[in-house]
Amino acid sequence: MSEHELRKSRSYKDFQDFRAELNDKILARGTTITKRFFTLDTKTYESGALDVKTKELLGLSASMVLRCDDCIAYHIDQCVKAGASDEELFETFDIALIVGGSIVIPHLRRAVAFLDECRAHADCGAS
Amino acid sequence: MSEHELRKSRSYKDFQDFRAELNDKILARGTTITKRFFTLDTKTYESGALDVKTKELLGLSASMVLRCDDCIAYHIDQCVKAGASDEELFETFDIALIVGGSIVIPHLRRAVAFLDECRAHADCGAS
Amino acid sequence: MSEHELRKSRSYKDFQDFRAELNDKILARGTTITKRFFTLDTKTYESGALDVKTKELLGLSASMVLRCDDCIAYHIDQCVKAGASDEELFETFDIALIVGGSIVIPHLRRAVAFLDECRAHADCGAS
Amino acid sequence: MSEHELRKSRSYKDFQDFRAELNDKILARGTTITKRFFTLDTKTYESGALDVKTKELLGLSASMVLRCDDCIAYHIDQCVKAGASDEELFETFDIALIVGGSIVIPHLRRAVAFLDECRAHADCGAS
Amino acid sequence: MSEHELRKSRSYKDFQDFRAELNDKILARGTTITKRFFTLDTKTYESGALDVKTKELLGLSASMVLRCDDCIAYHIDQCVKAGASDEELFETFDIALIVGGSIVIPHLRRAVAFLDECRAHADCGAS
Amino acid sequence: MSEHELRKSRSYKDFQDFRAELNDKILARGTTITKRFFTLDTKTYESGALDVKTKELLGLSASMVLRCDDCIAYHIDQCVKAGASDEELFETFDIALIVGGSIVIPHLRRAVAFLDECRAHADCGAS
Repeated sequence: MSEHELRKSRSYKDFQDFRAELNDKILARGTTITKRFFTLDTKTYESGALDVKTKELLGLSASMVLRCDDCIAYHIDQCVKAGASDEELFETFDIALIVGGSIVIPHLRRAVAFLDECRAHADCGAS
Repeated sequence: MSEHELRKSRSYKDFQDFRAELNDKILARGTTITKRFFTLDTKTYESGALDVKTKELLGLSASMVLRCDDCIAYHIDQCVKAGASDEELFETFDIALIVGGSIVIPHLRRAVAFLDECRAHADCGAS
Repeated sequence: MSEHELRKSRSYKDFQDFRAELNDKILARGTTITKRFFTLDTKTYESGALDVKTKELLGLSASMVLRCDDCIAYHIDQCVKAGASDEELFETFDIALIVGGSIVIPHLRRAVAFLDECRAHADCGAS
Repeated sequence: MSEHELRKSRSYKDFQDFRAELNDKILARGTTITKRFFTLDTKTYESGALDVKTKELLGLSASMVLRCDDCIAYHIDQCVKAGASDEELFETFDIALIVGGSIVIPHLRRAVAFLDECRAHADCGAS
Repeated sequence: MSEHELRKSRSYKDFQDFRAELNDKILARGTTITKRFFTLDTKTYESGALDVKTKELLGLSASMVLRCDDCIAYHIDQCVKAGASDEELFETFDIALIVGGSIVIPHLRRAVAFLDECRAHADCGAS
Repeated sequence: MSEHELRKSRSYKDFQDFRAELNDKILARGTTITKRFFTLDTKTYESGALDVKTKELLGLSASMVLRCDDCIAYHIDQCVKAGASDEELFETFDIALIVGGSIVIPHLRRAVAFLDECRAHADCGAS
């Protein structure tokens, strides 16, 4: 495993920990508006006419063209948990790449690195 | 039918005509790069691990958060042709709305107006 | 009054009518998520630690740098109704111009044209 | 000349008139900040280590990926006045298209329509 | 104090040092345009029809929806120095969150972490 | 050399290594669409009506206003290799700064730091 792989493999837990810690802080100190928006955000991806996997892929393509690494990481993790295959993820990456252009490529690189971490994490039986 | 509905119902044909006329002009005068990109853009939405409807919904959510009315109109038209239901389209709109925020709302208004034109156009047996 | 002024002075009512008509349509056909987001959007600008005028100016500066003409028009209308002076509005425009750059200028032109319509509309005793 | 060409050929003068009228209004009522920014914006494209044509092409590629039609129109007009060839403009369009993705295409269509207006306008001996 | 808190608490000084060092380098080597823009940027937030605190809140909401962490950090620091309360800051965060959507959330997390650093720094009597 | 300079001088190699490693991974696992887009991206900057240096400056101005640090770093490296002078680069920075506004400044800081690394790297005879 290269140094980059090593550095990246530590970041899965870092990402989840920082996210959880600060979300707790925001929900403790935020207004009613903040809390309602966080609740609404979660409900948006629940199963409906579209299933959870499709909704998470939709969240992923939106996050990639808006070029938000943390949002991309979050939705990749959710897609993996919802059973998305690598083929489905790479076709979603393609749509984001063609819609959003070469400016998406640096985020694609980090997305692929993070995807491998998610798969590795899932293989260990971790949730 | 209100004045707005009337005004909007004329725009479906205008949109398609201007798009076709200028695409022809671009492909006639553009470079090899331009032409290859247009070809690649079309191929991205062909059936693969994901079906055409899902890919068009992914193109739609990406276009909505990037707030490009013409891209939204194009993908709504393609989604309708691929058999997407209003329920599926509105759940896709929701994801774009929550990811992209209230800044998406003016585009959502025009998207809903255009969706009705697409349905009306399809009902007339037009392609 | 120049032709541009005339064309623009018709657009205040057009803007409000199209906005109202399509919002009604969205709320009639949208999901629970859509409706809750619209409610949340309205509540965000209610008086709190910050007063309504300041909140509307914040919504205006955010809309200007994101370059959404309809959002800019909406918040200018709300700012005028909340008693914002031209001096306060132009200082808000400056912040958006410096943060967002010359790409904001075309939106600034339409913002100033719309501001004059709002003032003219208010002078007529219209709400 | 098609209906679209006709509609578009009227817009060159409309674009310039609205731009001039509102710029005058902004400079008459804006703050010192506003005025200084407008002056700075003009000075940025003056000849230096890079010549005017190159600087205008740089402004054009930046405007295209930020997807601002009025900014694109302005810089195309300036590029034409600075002697840019269609080959140079289409290569600049390609860079914007590849960097910014398919979301740039609707703006590329309007850019090509506007470029033809600029050439037609220049052929008439107009400035 | 958690590891994250520790890591974050080091970053306030890092942020200020890197910012100061590179600004000096830019002003030493930049053109007249660069220098004038930096001066104009500073002047934009001086007291006028709107007070400094309101202007900094406007810069903050603009920076949040444009999702620039360094700009967010800078304006939070200025807001704290201008006497903004946590209530006022969280209501500004709400407007950015609703206007800009869930894509703003990762920046909100870092904003809240940085706000706590600013408060801690101010409590130590540091400027 | 300051701590920041030191930290930054290590990042040139890190940037190139991570970029090369992940590009290899993407090209090994990506679809035909992905591979064709990467090829097209490279071909876009080849000499044509515009020379390589001008095309790289165009890629740089587009990357700066879209605020992608990795894209900015990549194009600065290519500009340096194509013989761009500091004067030409700073005039390109100015255009991005004026078009994109103060939100570009944090990226300008990192661009200037990276430019110095590129020059230092080139002085060592490295490619």
